[in-house]
Amino acid sequence: MLEELKGSVWQANVELVLKGLVVLTFGNVSGYDRASGLVAIKPSGVSYDALKARDIVLVDLSGKVVEGKLRPSSDTPTHLALYKAFPELRGISHAHSPAATAFAQAAAEIPCYGTTHADHFNGPVPVTRFLTKKEVEGEYEKNTGTVIIERYAELKTSPLEMPAVLVAGHGPFTMGLSPISAVRNALILEYIAHMALQTKQINPAVRRLPSYIREKHHQRKHGPDAYYGQRKEKP
Amino acid sequence: MLEELKGSVWQANVELVLKGLVVLTFGNVSGYDRASGLVAIKPSGVSYDALKARDIVLVDLSGKVVEGKLRPSSDTPTHLALYKAFPELRGISHAHSPAATAFAQAAAEIPCYGTTHADHFNGPVPVTRFLTKKEVEGEYEKNTGTVIIERYAELKTSPLEMPAVLVAGHGPFTMGLSPISAVRNALILEYIAHMALQTKQINPAVRRLPSYIREKHHQRKHGPDAYYGQRKEKP
Amino acid sequence: MLEELKGSVWQANVELVLKGLVVLTFGNVSGYDRASGLVAIKPSGVSYDALKARDIVLVDLSGKVVEGKLRPSSDTPTHLALYKAFPELRGISHAHSPAATAFAQAAAEIPCYGTTHADHFNGPVPVTRFLTKKEVEGEYEKNTGTVIIERYAELKTSPLEMPAVLVAGHGPFTMGLSPISAVRNALILEYIAHMALQTKQINPAVRRLPSYIREKHHQRKHGPDAYYGQRKEKP
Amino acid sequence: MLEELKGSVWQANVELVLKGLVVLTFGNVSGYDRASGLVAIKPSGVSYDALKARDIVLVDLSGKVVEGKLRPSSDTPTHLALYKAFPELRGISHAHSPAATAFAQAAAEIPCYGTTHADHFNGPVPVTRFLTKKEVEGEYEKNTGTVIIERYAELKTSPLEMPAVLVAGHGPFTMGLSPISAVRNALILEYIAHMALQTKQINPAVRRLPSYIREKHHQRKHGPDAYYGQRKEKP
Repeated sequence: MLEELKGSVWQANVELVLKGLVVLTFGNVSGYDRASGLVAIKPSGVSYDALKARDIVLVDLSGKVVEGKLRPSSDTPTHLALYKAFPELRGISHAHSPAATAFAQAAAEIPCYGTTHADHFNGPVPVTRFLTKKEVEGEYEKNTGTVIIERYAELKTSPLEMPAVLVAGHGPFTMGLSPISAVRNALILEYIAHMALQTKQINPAVRRLPSYIREKHHQRKHGPDAYYGQRKEKP
Repeated sequence: MLEELKGSVWQANVELVLKGLVVLTFGNVSGYDRASGLVAIKPSGVSYDALKARDIVLVDLSGKVVEGKLRPSSDTPTHLALYKAFPELRGISHAHSPAATAFAQAAAEIPCYGTTHADHFNGPVPVTRFLTKKEVEGEYEKNTGTVIIERYAELKTSPLEMPAVLVAGHGPFTMGLSPISAVRNALILEYIAHMALQTKQINPAVRRLPSYIREKHHQRKHGPDAYYGQRKEKP
Repeated sequence: MLEELKGSVWQANVELVLKGLVVLTFGNVSGYDRASGLVAIKPSGVSYDALKARDIVLVDLSGKVVEGKLRPSSDTPTHLALYKAFPELRGISHAHSPAATAFAQAAAEIPCYGTTHADHFNGPVPVTRFLTKKEVEGEYEKNTGTVIIERYAELKTSPLEMPAVLVAGHGPFTMGLSPISAVRNALILEYIAHMALQTKQINPAVRRLPSYIREKHHQRKHGPDAYYGQRKEKP
Repeated sequence: MLEELKGSVWQANVELVLKGLVVLTFGNVSGYDRASGLVAIKPSGVSYDALKARDIVLVDLSGKVVEGKLRPSSDTPTHLALYKAFPELRGISHAHSPAATAFAQAAAEIPCYGTTHADHFNGPVPVTRFLTKKEVEGEYEKNTGTVIIERYAELKTSPLEMPAVLVAGHGPFTMGLSPISAVRNALILEYIAHMALQTKQINPAVRRLPSYIREKHHQRKHGPDAYYGQRKEKP
């Protein structure tokens, strides 16, 4: 069932390792097939070395395992909450890459200091609030999705516009129109987080990129008149 | 004798290098066979390139070499002290990986700033006091074990609960229920130490992860009702 | 047409990846053939994995595509502006390598703190001003070239003397007498930017290298009586 | 002539690259044969990719080329000055590795913060003064040797005891009883410099390792009763 989706989710999980974004069993990538309403996701706690395409688990939006012998990632309810809130998404990646996670641990958004950032994220990468005690003691992973959705609502935006978010004290989630595009956004996020940290070390009083430059860079790549690349691209 | 243990100790030592946790002859990993009361450990000052499974030295808990032509690691008495104090341990790893060693050199514990840390270590990674002049001039390596054991006693915990500790001015020791699991903890320790350093650079006033989140993450992976992974895991 | 130039531009683009200066589709390298007045440049948004020598696009100095099926890099007008202003140049490289980009984002020049820097760049690596709103809304990429040219004029120097420059809020451009030499300068720039950042962390009050040492190092490699290397080298 | 020495110098130069201590043509390693009074050294400005054992140049202590078609490293007079002052040396390595060079650029010694440092360097790694204008305008490379020798004299020590030194504003020189041992010291130096920088970031008020621990660690590896390794080792 959904062999192609499972293959692309497997490949995207492997790519997380190849790009150096995860070690051991950290991290997970999922993909969503809207037609069937099914999500393909990495099994929990399986080493990437041993991971095979046939290990990818299929679950429905309620979390019921539809196919697969292994337990799905313990973060599955977070992924499901996001697909339910933003059904246009086709891929979600969760890694604990060092610099992006450091911003999440510092409960700090990643300011937009340059065009590398603006090319991919139109404004600061947002950070959620910490979950409350009650949210943690309840459906913790689902509520992780809830604070992400809440933050997008506060900012009047969505993962389609801003395909990365940091969960305070936890780490980044990135999204896209395919599993591999979610991983690509994870790589870019780590890259710009690392540079933002260095930028502040060089100049603690650094100011954010003027908004007219930020807009220009984002529009030339993602706007209606985008002229970057060979054809229009989307998050 | 104990070929399987020696093989797993050899493999765990090689893994230290593959994961980038040691250079040259730095570091050593041991394994403990409780039935025979024997410890298998890396020989002293042997380059990892040249290390073979048959070079692994077997010593008893008094430090007497039982098998092997090479001298055991000069840190052997530290390992022995720990196996005597905590006989449930099956593996100990000692590396001088950069970020964890930097915390040890700063004589600072590694605060728990996020869930990556909490997933593996339930609270700050402790640091011992410096050894006294008398302790250094006496049985130095054995006394290194002594200050580690003392610190666990002060904190009313053990390596089974907190499988990593920093020796002030020296570096980290990590432990586990097998040699390879001790090395895996060394890798995670380096990862979270590096992120803790970056977190503080981003936000010098950063606060520790709320304890209810820390507990939750640790319990979902290591508690009696753990639901992470395919089966329960232990340090 | 110009197969040799296209080959060397392709090779220089690949070298950017091999040296770890770019990820994904970031960055671009061009080469200039003064005889024909043509510039060979990377196509826009094409992944380095898939890039072939025959994909390299040929454009004239007005920006008209003369050969190639793909759209040239969106940064092409910046390259053209520089070749028009400095016709002795034969290669230009643009990457978003982390440390050099961090200086650009901090809108800070890279001070010359040591002989590694002086060996390659005779003085601080300059940074441009930010483009104005009008410049961004007009011919943005061409105006990126304009602020670079303006900065060289203010400093009464040229890319032949100082083959690297940072565009504020954007990133570095490096130049040379061949495409590969431009990339080599990008690598050196990243190296010295990274060391400059660390130098300031060690000693926030660090002073610049005495000018008589800086001059000496630059002259022994690039001056009329250069005695470094097997034959004289130029930027 | 001296094929074995040339082979070991070639190998040590290649090792500099393999260990990530140099890029491009930076750095050089030499070896000294006291019987013949000849020094084998890397040719100037030759890329490591292209370097062959037969390219290694033989010079006498006055700097005269005795064998080899290429020009010797421009730093040759520094090496010669050191072999003349310390004839027990058999190898010298000069690299611009990032963290060690950053300390040199900051004109700061590397404090001994831990046992990794003490295992190899018994006390802070010294830094020279800057060369004077007159020294730079005169025999610059020879005078680089002069300030190193002066610093050892001031500290009443020698490269046999302290096999690493930083030249202010320039970079590190490491030494040993063979070319490969000089390179090994360069690797350790970079490692401990990187950790010293991180240590100070974690705890800006960090104190140096108590001298009784420093002495102990150095003696157990290098003292008359050394018990580290399989046999006694020397710098």
